[in-house]
Amino acid sequence: MNNYYIPRLATIEGYKQLFMALEAKVVDIVKHIKKTANDDPRRVVHSFKVGLALTLVSLFYYFKPLYNNFGCSAMWAIMTVVVVFEYSVGATLGKGLNRALATFLAGALGVGAHYLANITRNNFGEPILLGIFVFLLAAASTFIRFFPTVKARYDYGMLIFILTFSMVTISGYRTHEILDLAQKRLSTIAIGASICVIISIVIYPVWAGEDLHKLVAQNIEKLGDFIQGFSDTYFKTLETDGYVHLDLILANYKSVMNSKNSEETLANFSRWEPGHGAFMYSHPWKQYLIIGSLTRQCASRIETINAYNKAQASLEIFGKLQEPFSRMSMECWKALKELSLAIKTTTKPSSAKQHILNSRTASKSLKLLLNSEILGGINMEQIIPLASVASIMIDVVDYVEKIYEAIDELASLANFENGSVSKCCHVVVDVERLSEVIVDDQSVGKGTLVIP
Amino acid sequence: MNNYYIPRLATIEGYKQLFMALEAKVVDIVKHIKKTANDDPRRVVHSFKVGLALTLVSLFYYFKPLYNNFGCSAMWAIMTVVVVFEYSVGATLGKGLNRALATFLAGALGVGAHYLANITRNNFGEPILLGIFVFLLAAASTFIRFFPTVKARYDYGMLIFILTFSMVTISGYRTHEILDLAQKRLSTIAIGASICVIISIVIYPVWAGEDLHKLVAQNIEKLGDFIQGFSDTYFKTLETDGYVHLDLILANYKSVMNSKNSEETLANFSRWEPGHGAFMYSHPWKQYLIIGSLTRQCASRIETINAYNKAQASLEIFGKLQEPFSRMSMECWKALKELSLAIKTTTKPSSAKQHILNSRTASKSLKLLLNSEILGGINMEQIIPLASVASIMIDVVDYVEKIYEAIDELASLANFENGSVSKCCHVVVDVERLSEVIVDDQSVGKGTLVIP
Repeated sequence: MNNYYIPRLATIEGYKQLFMALEAKVVDIVKHIKKTANDDPRRVVHSFKVGLALTLVSLFYYFKPLYNNFGCSAMWAIMTVVVVFEYSVGATLGKGLNRALATFLAGALGVGAHYLANITRNNFGEPILLGIFVFLLAAASTFIRFFPTVKARYDYGMLIFILTFSMVTISGYRTHEILDLAQKRLSTIAIGASICVIISIVIYPVWAGEDLHKLVAQNIEKLGDFIQGFSDTYFKTLETDGYVHLDLILANYKSVMNSKNSEETLANFSRWEPGHGAFMYSHPWKQYLIIGSLTRQCASRIETINAYNKAQASLEIFGKLQEPFSRMSMECWKALKELSLAIKTTTKPSSAKQHILNSRTASKSLKLLLNSEILGGINMEQIIPLASVASIMIDVVDYVEKIYEAIDELASLANFENGSVSKCCHVVVDVERLSEVIVDDQSVGKGTLVIP
Repeated sequence: MNNYYIPRLATIEGYKQLFMALEAKVVDIVKHIKKTANDDPRRVVHSFKVGLALTLVSLFYYFKPLYNNFGCSAMWAIMTVVVVFEYSVGATLGKGLNRALATFLAGALGVGAHYLANITRNNFGEPILLGIFVFLLAAASTFIRFFPTVKARYDYGMLIFILTFSMVTISGYRTHEILDLAQKRLSTIAIGASICVIISIVIYPVWAGEDLHKLVAQNIEKLGDFIQGFSDTYFKTLETDGYVHLDLILANYKSVMNSKNSEETLANFSRWEPGHGAFMYSHPWKQYLIIGSLTRQCASRIETINAYNKAQASLEIFGKLQEPFSRMSMECWKALKELSLAIKTTTKPSSAKQHILNSRTASKSLKLLLNSEILGGINMEQIIPLASVASIMIDVVDYVEKIYEAIDELASLANFENGSVSKCCHVVVDVERLSEVIVDDQSVGKGTLVIP
């Protein structure tokens, strides 16, 4: 009996374990869902928008008059909605236009090829001729997809071009109402694409351009916060234990370094979008890529500073260097904060230039101090790590100026308003250390940063 | 008459200009085509492979017995070939499997939903129930596509899942041979996907895994070349005019910094690929991403060195620093070269460790020199840029060691052979400065770098 008993117990135990594993899995999935939704609540809205578009397009089947008109071609409307509906308006518009245009062009070409092959009036010659057409066009179009300019904007269109041409040409061999079929297919695809575009614009639109705009502004702010946080932490922790704990600050700003790809994708989508909010159709989206690239180059300099985690120096040297160093990074932080705000509020960066000039003055006095005889007598082992950090920071000031110039160009290209930011908004900056408030300085007529 | 005459002349002139513009455009396009083909000749082969696959699949229409069997469903085979055939085997396999599996699952679920809705036997209730099914499933699946893990590997599958479920459920409302249709569609899709996979594997296969492997090895080599080239240029040009012309070397190695995205894409595709050449199915592709990330971090350090283009120092200081500095970077270069070669030849990095130890020794003497009293008396303005560059280079040595460790782990994870690289191959390194040859050192039993 024992032989039967043990497996039974083992089975109950097994079920228990299975149940617990399942429960853990479910909890894990629920957490995952919550995180995905919280990271960007627009994702939930987008999911329902796709559901709505599909439900709308399925009316082609449910309503008899519509179905009688389009028949099986209604399938193409469903397919178009599923494939074309993307997260942002730009991506949806780009795909929709690509699909509709490519279908039209390839359809026309396909019908032409069909009639050309028909001339042979020969059961053996026709498929060979059709096969050659399809082979050549597919090979040529596939090759064209490798061109970088085509890949960036028309890759999907090329795919649909090959697809439609092949389908029309090949299936034309069996079907004889080819023109009627092509016309029905084109109109259902156009209807499906229109439904996608309309829903994506009318219901809580996600503009790729706006996302790019915000991302670039945010990255500049993160860079500024890092510079300020670094200078703060560097001297504070060096004083206490001779080590700098930068890992936490670095982790928060790693995303700046890895944003190249998202910026390029968003810029590509943005070019399809019509004017919206503060952005015209011809908004200079490419300029954001230049700003983003400079931001990353500056960030890469700062990442190097992490090499100087360890620095042993007497308090005496710190005292001498801390003042200009802190002033320099504080002014950089203010300049970047202003620049980020200028992008966010689409106004010209007004007082950022002054902060850059201030940081230049501070960097000059830091350089003078480093080169002075005061530090001459001190042990080189102590001075070199500090000097290296200071040198990199001086280089960072150059980059902040380059970022300023790029944003200034953006402001003039996109006709940003003159900066009277502060008149309309009081922004509370969420840096604990320095709870700063931008207040309206009536006397100067422009926003200035005041430390309370 | 004059009024008629001028436009005629203008028209001829206009045609001439148009013709010249067209000619320039054609020349431009031909150049573009040549460049795209030369950059990677496999692109031309890929284009013909797509053409071949399409021609093969079109036989479904041309041969009467095949057409009688599948009918209109043959269309799905064409569609599958166009959409699934990707450049690399991994991408094609991934898409093909995603498509086939998703179609099967969604088809089964769709047929189930169709029968469930049929129970109502009510012309008004059925479309409402079907609509609710489609809405919920489309919304849920669209949301799941935002999960990073799903997005990386199953995004296309999710899309096809929504597509097939909607089509089967909705069109099931009008068609009554739904099971027969679903079965035909599934088999044509499976045939189309199989044709793609077979052609992409049999004719000049492009393995994503191999590309990733080569890319990572190449980037390490580029990094090494840059380090060596930098050290060389730095002292040479500083001696002549006090400026370092790094722009050329930097441009060549920018691609290292921007390879994150391609590496991740290739790693994603690689995981779908069966064993091929030196790689098993379960090859540790993820380890390449770790190596690539370390390479980029190291590269980011070196980019910072560009800040020190300008350095004014007396020949006396150069003389003191040049020897350990050059030795350090030479050993780094050798180590990276060995590591790159170890990856390329899938052997364990044997002598790289020794080069890293050598560079550590050199970096220690550089540090000692920097901290010594010998430099104490010299102007700080002269010593700080040099010291900063030296500090960054010392940090670079740390990174080279980290890269070594990551590659060593890769070698043990992937069971690389013990390094007797040199026994089988004599590699001529294309660095003009140092035309080195790897020769077989019988006495030590492993390859060593010998400078003739």
